[in-house]
Amino acid sequence: MKIYELAASPSARRVSIFLKEIGLEIESVHVDIRAGENLTAEFLEKAANGRIPLLELDDGSHICESVAICRYLEAASEQQQSLFGNSALEQAQVEMWHRMVELQGLFPALQAFRNISGVYSDRENVIPSWGEESRSRLISFLPTLERQLSANKYIAGENFSIADITLFVLINFAKNIDVEIPAELSHLAQWFKTIASRPSVQ
Amino acid sequence: MKIYELAASPSARRVSIFLKEIGLEIESVHVDIRAGENLTAEFLEKAANGRIPLLELDDGSHICESVAICRYLEAASEQQQSLFGNSALEQAQVEMWHRMVELQGLFPALQAFRNISGVYSDRENVIPSWGEESRSRLISFLPTLERQLSANKYIAGENFSIADITLFVLINFAKNIDVEIPAELSHLAQWFKTIASRPSVQ
Repeated sequence: MKIYELAASPSARRVSIFLKEIGLEIESVHVDIRAGENLTAEFLEKAANGRIPLLELDDGSHICESVAICRYLEAASEQQQSLFGNSALEQAQVEMWHRMVELQGLFPALQAFRNISGVYSDRENVIPSWGEESRSRLISFLPTLERQLSANKYIAGENFSIADITLFVLINFAKNIDVEIPAELSHLAQWFKTIASRPSVQ
Repeated sequence: MKIYELAASPSARRVSIFLKEIGLEIESVHVDIRAGENLTAEFLEKAANGRIPLLELDDGSHICESVAICRYLEAASEQQQSLFGNSALEQAQVEMWHRMVELQGLFPALQAFRNISGVYSDRENVIPSWGEESRSRLISFLPTLERQLSANKYIAGENFSIADITLFVLINFAKNIDVEIPAELSHLAQWFKTIASRPSVQ
């Protein structure tokens, strides 16, 4: 197997932390998105969504979308504990919080970044007012995280999960749009410190 | 168990089709979103994301986010075949196509609808130019679906999955923003006809 990625991309970062958490090492191929290497016919032939990260299996077939890649790699590893949750209830709680972190956190942050910075204005329409709106929606989501973390060790409950990885990547990425954890959200800040000390994110 | 929902909402529709597919019947409680019943302190106490659908378990705890609800309900049912895929590879393919349908289809359609129609302008900022941009991104995603369906019976491969349910809900919902399947996308049109004949969507 090998993985096509760009280390700076939040999606690729998610997969790379996940790989370290499950103790898997895979050959990595750098794709220069800024230069449009993901827009070539050759890349689009492999990646149905035209994006990185992209996993190439040994039989030459491909899986894109970072969370799909994580699911496949975990199944291929020998992990006893799943980062997607173990019991039916835990799996649902991980899915629930993971989606909340994505829908109300990571996706608004990405839309804010692209529409405020205009970094991909050579290939997509950029609407700065939507960027500002997305940024403010992200900020108003942070107290929901604080509430959950004031009663739980990790974002989906008592166990570390993929939802923590996505949240960690989000909080780091949010610096690009000048969003930091406000001082009064002390449980979120403490959670961030705990996650930042894990070997997988060094 | 009981489920809080609004039949017209695409997310609630997803769960209700899923329930019929796995042969499960659950008591349903109508929530009037237009009237803001989801914004009351009582509802927010139950739903961490403030949205429907919301599943209430018999012990009084709650799961929100439609896909998390589907995962939990499938685990609680006696299904042999999973609508999330069976082998590790199939699970990854379902996740991959499901996320593509959501990220490039359903979410842009929802953002288009809310920002063009202004239906929730009493509670959120509305940016019509982002609505138009989202609508055009949805339209440019349709050929990707056509390509996949020209080589596969269902959107994630040979088996019907949750990705088909989400895509069916998307295509129906897209009528609200005047997006229909273009005549030249014949495989997508044929797939839609096939899904529309399933008892679960009647």
